[in-house]
Amino acid sequence: MIKGSGTSLDARSAPAERTPVRIGVLGLGTVGQALLRLLAASQSRIERRIGRRLAVTHVALRDPQRRRDCDLSAVALSTDPRAVVTADVDVVVELIGGISPARELVLAALAAGKAVVTANKALLAESGGEIFSAAEIAGQPLGFEAAVGGGIPIIKALREGLAANRIDEIAGIINGTSNYILTEMSRRGIAFEVALGRAQRLGYAEADPRFDVDGIDAAHKLAILAAIAFATPPDFAAIQRDGLARVHPDDIRLAGELGYRIKPLAIAKRHGGGLELRVHPTLVPHAHPLALVDGSVNAVRVKGDAVGQTLYIGRGAGGLPTASAVLADLIEIARTRGCAAVLPPALGWPQASLAPLPVLPTAATVSSFYLRLRVADTPGVLRAITAHLAEAEISVEAILQKEPEAGADAQLAIITSAVTAADFEQALAQIRALDFVRPDHSCLRVEHFDD
Amino acid sequence: MIKGSGTSLDARSAPAERTPVRIGVLGLGTVGQALLRLLAASQSRIERRIGRRLAVTHVALRDPQRRRDCDLSAVALSTDPRAVVTADVDVVVELIGGISPARELVLAALAAGKAVVTANKALLAESGGEIFSAAEIAGQPLGFEAAVGGGIPIIKALREGLAANRIDEIAGIINGTSNYILTEMSRRGIAFEVALGRAQRLGYAEADPRFDVDGIDAAHKLAILAAIAFATPPDFAAIQRDGLARVHPDDIRLAGELGYRIKPLAIAKRHGGGLELRVHPTLVPHAHPLALVDGSVNAVRVKGDAVGQTLYIGRGAGGLPTASAVLADLIEIARTRGCAAVLPPALGWPQASLAPLPVLPTAATVSSFYLRLRVADTPGVLRAITAHLAEAEISVEAILQKEPEAGADAQLAIITSAVTAADFEQALAQIRALDFVRPDHSCLRVEHFDD
Repeated sequence: MIKGSGTSLDARSAPAERTPVRIGVLGLGTVGQALLRLLAASQSRIERRIGRRLAVTHVALRDPQRRRDCDLSAVALSTDPRAVVTADVDVVVELIGGISPARELVLAALAAGKAVVTANKALLAESGGEIFSAAEIAGQPLGFEAAVGGGIPIIKALREGLAANRIDEIAGIINGTSNYILTEMSRRGIAFEVALGRAQRLGYAEADPRFDVDGIDAAHKLAILAAIAFATPPDFAAIQRDGLARVHPDDIRLAGELGYRIKPLAIAKRHGGGLELRVHPTLVPHAHPLALVDGSVNAVRVKGDAVGQTLYIGRGAGGLPTASAVLADLIEIARTRGCAAVLPPALGWPQASLAPLPVLPTAATVSSFYLRLRVADTPGVLRAITAHLAEAEISVEAILQKEPEAGADAQLAIITSAVTAADFEQALAQIRALDFVRPDHSCLRVEHFDD
Repeated sequence: MIKGSGTSLDARSAPAERTPVRIGVLGLGTVGQALLRLLAASQSRIERRIGRRLAVTHVALRDPQRRRDCDLSAVALSTDPRAVVTADVDVVVELIGGISPARELVLAALAAGKAVVTANKALLAESGGEIFSAAEIAGQPLGFEAAVGGGIPIIKALREGLAANRIDEIAGIINGTSNYILTEMSRRGIAFEVALGRAQRLGYAEADPRFDVDGIDAAHKLAILAAIAFATPPDFAAIQRDGLARVHPDDIRLAGELGYRIKPLAIAKRHGGGLELRVHPTLVPHAHPLALVDGSVNAVRVKGDAVGQTLYIGRGAGGLPTASAVLADLIEIARTRGCAAVLPPALGWPQASLAPLPVLPTAATVSSFYLRLRVADTPGVLRAITAHLAEAEISVEAILQKEPEAGADAQLAIITSAVTAADFEQALAQIRALDFVRPDHSCLRVEHFDD
């Protein structure tokens, strides 16, 4: 049982130099254990940096009997996370995940005058408005570098490093499991289901993989990045999502022959007064560095009006990379010594200055498309298909058709010019109605990343 | 003539929300003009962020008659930079470059209780100890995000985003001119001198290009990155440098056939208690994202013990990207409202905690090497060369020799295993003494970037 009085980081409590920062950790899974190990290994370096120790004094965990890969000898353990929130700690690190009870715990910690660090992208994407407001009202820092891109300091880059820019575009590989699966499909020529099974056996994908492969996790992260980039409240529900299951090994092969790789991208673009927010497997030109980001690695491209294109690459998941981000937030919070008003607001903008921006309907969003069709090997096929595209004022930027075996269907892959999704869908419907076009087909978006 | 009283950012001067931050800019070249344009364009966004205006009130420039590409109507102009330093400004932005008088001006500004932002890598690399100490003693922020990597927020990433890590390696393309020249040599198959001339005509290289092509500029930047990464005073003089002139178009072609691209890298590694610091053209595996960083783009790879490998890519030079970094520093300084002690120290470490680390002599540094030789087309050549390598316990990782035309010499390219420079040089001396080995040869280092 933990007793606490709800104190906070305070610049005036002397001697600040000697007082360790007391940290309560909620959840002791992979990231929590890595955080404790990393803190133990880097304690002397941290003291050298900030003149204070960071001490994890309280930990809430589900099963106190389970063996953990970290030293808990100086830590008060509890199975009740509320007890840690109300204990004598300066900062609460929330590593439970999910919406409830994480939401209530974070709000309680902020209300009790404690700083909060969280890696919980679902919480910030779905209840961000409430959480960010509570932090602002409490005057407490809320660190969430670990919520997006694992160890890549992308939140800090976007919120502070690029603060002078009007951000125009974000495109990121921000779900490592999806990138791992597409990379495996590409390297081994295997089907989505096979690659997913492999990822599950290796522990890269959950038993219920929908969060990853349907783009939910990536959309959570995109909602957070877009909020910082565009000074808008996080809007998870507005994000258009397409999952990985639609990618066929033939698509990877044909895209490769056309000079592209298929990557799981989360995309946010500003157009005039509106936003485009979408998560889907995407063709990326193989000469762009994003195309080389393989396996479970993450990468985020940010385009600003002054800086142009910048790109951030690194490990997006795993205990130590995530702990690296959590600990960076803790070091920053410790340095402020209660003077948290000096830190940038959580999203980089005061809550009152956030303004929702209209999200463009999918039909109105513009991109190039990749289209794969199976067609009967008869004369006039190409002419009929390209005629329908030309009617919709869609140019063919690249096309690939190989000689089929005698009697077999031919496979055709096309990269179109930039076009609205509505116009493309209309042309596609007409093409699919042609009697020599087989019912199975595939279409994916293409991003070219003009600099 | 400017009169000033040397005030400073102060949290107590009311009403802080309404008071603009008064900025004095020293030097109105490309970056200075871009800064004024960017500030004008983003003023309302900045006020939304921080609740204050940033106002450039004073500018020092050499020739007041020259036409400038920015609005100077509300600015007091002076040809005397000291007058701007002593004027009624809160922050001095130093964009003059070079050591003197920039050094004296920055020290005077700090002594007068003013925050400083500078893009001057030469100054920080060569007089950094003095400058950083002066900032700490004055209790004033010293921003220099623009000094390395242009618009890429690499200083902030290294100092804050990765603060929880023991940094083990940095490898960066941090001189855009060098990267442009090597990229042109590669794309066009032209010699170094031709590519340099092209870069000079296009304004990418100075009339005196030695700062860029001899690695001086990159070494300045590396000294700063290494100081932040390793908590050591900047030590420009200790950096080993090799210029671009040693790269022959044949090297680019042969490296390409062996699966590498030649990139101008600045490298800092930690080994036990010592450092390796070097700047030279380097073979990089073509599957690594650094290999795709072309033209004048910059990129920095940072490897930390917790985060693993991270990579930062973007425009490393030019007016607006550099102004993006300067303005990010100004926004951060404005936000602190005089509470500068809350910002991280300039290098991320208090001055008293910096400790010089011994720099390994070049001979003791370990890497793979690329070696190109011209040899007579006689039997036994390969056996004799590889025998000398084997004697020094150097393995051949890759080798390329094509059938020469009748009577011509053969060209041979080898990639070795990792070896000390001393052992490699010794084996090379023996190989060069072989009578069928022609005097002209080329050797370059290879970096493999294990993750």
